[in-house]
Amino acid sequence: MTRHIERQIDHLKEKILRVGTLVEEAFSKSITALINRDTSLAQRVMSSDEEIDRMEVEVEEECLKILALYQPVAADLRFVVAVLKINNDLERMGDLARNIAKRVPQLAAGAPVDLPPEIRTMAMLAQEMVKQSLDSVVNADPTLARQVREEDDAVDAARQQIRRRILQGIKARPEQLENLLRVNSVSKHIERIADMATNVAEDVIYMVEGDIVRHRATD
Amino acid sequence: MTRHIERQIDHLKEKILRVGTLVEEAFSKSITALINRDTSLAQRVMSSDEEIDRMEVEVEEECLKILALYQPVAADLRFVVAVLKINNDLERMGDLARNIAKRVPQLAAGAPVDLPPEIRTMAMLAQEMVKQSLDSVVNADPTLARQVREEDDAVDAARQQIRRRILQGIKARPEQLENLLRVNSVSKHIERIADMATNVAEDVIYMVEGDIVRHRATD
Repeated sequence: MTRHIERQIDHLKEKILRVGTLVEEAFSKSITALINRDTSLAQRVMSSDEEIDRMEVEVEEECLKILALYQPVAADLRFVVAVLKINNDLERMGDLARNIAKRVPQLAAGAPVDLPPEIRTMAMLAQEMVKQSLDSVVNADPTLARQVREEDDAVDAARQQIRRRILQGIKARPEQLENLLRVNSVSKHIERIADMATNVAEDVIYMVEGDIVRHRATD
Repeated sequence: MTRHIERQIDHLKEKILRVGTLVEEAFSKSITALINRDTSLAQRVMSSDEEIDRMEVEVEEECLKILALYQPVAADLRFVVAVLKINNDLERMGDLARNIAKRVPQLAAGAPVDLPPEIRTMAMLAQEMVKQSLDSVVNADPTLARQVREEDDAVDAARQQIRRRILQGIKARPEQLENLLRVNSVSKHIERIADMATNVAEDVIYMVEGDIVRHRATD
């Protein structure tokens, strides 16, 4: 029985990491597509979301199977419950990457607009947070997870800078209004991806230490 | 043992409904505060979010306790897993209501702006969806849950109308730019609250029928 559940838990860990890798790729490609105005890459990101959705359902079914058949307790139970929640957050990150990709053909069609340079910085920070949050899942590493939580402030600060640039841009070039609002949406999606990475990190802290840290300020 | 678990499940149901009621009230008050430019009501909505966050943690701890101590199977297991997810979504709805409330003092401080009439319609539709999604939880009613899923299209349509009005507004009255963008944010928050109500409804369908319907189109 113990051996069986260990095997199931290992399998579940592999699977959630596969979802994580797909989401990380989708996000990274959506940003490349945005920067290079590459609509065909954006199209591929949009199609890949179906695979993420399918995997999410599989992971959830696997969690339920483990709960029903092996009735895990203590650390195993916390792991399965954390995976249920992380799975949900990863699927939402996938949706957000798809939303970023959707803006690429719209931006290509409208009057050309320069991306604020902070978009790249913000996307790099958020990508790093996603990567680290997934590493903290694999290695059950609450120290790394705590670092992810702290990085979120830098993303929020970049988002505020972009917001100000967008406002200035609209005032200076009203003809670019629609595209500037699209860029604004993209920056909000990136901000939310970073928020979801923070959620994942908080679930890792809970999983390892049994401590619910969300809704508590960092430091 | 069976009697014990029934009592625990009933208690969990009461508790998740209490979270639901708090969230429903926060959302409804945030809209009243917005329409009446009532900054003190908005302030109360922002403070009430702490109570929602605290309850969310309690519900999650109770789910884990039931899983660990009673090792539920079949319908009971699906109920507990559905509550874990619904709890998450309700907490996010609470955050969105708080985000709407945050805009109220900002809107009051800037150049006065008329709210697009569709904001009220959209808010009413979303409030109805939240109410029905909670009723579908209490009564384990998948028919009502399916209705919630269908209503989401009307909210999305209202959101598109508001988006167009905001664009026209910015072109016609550039001095209202900042406040019009705040109204735009509010309408996005309402849209996301309706999306979360849809998630709750989908969890009810799963809970009752064991069928994962998300990512599938409504007819």
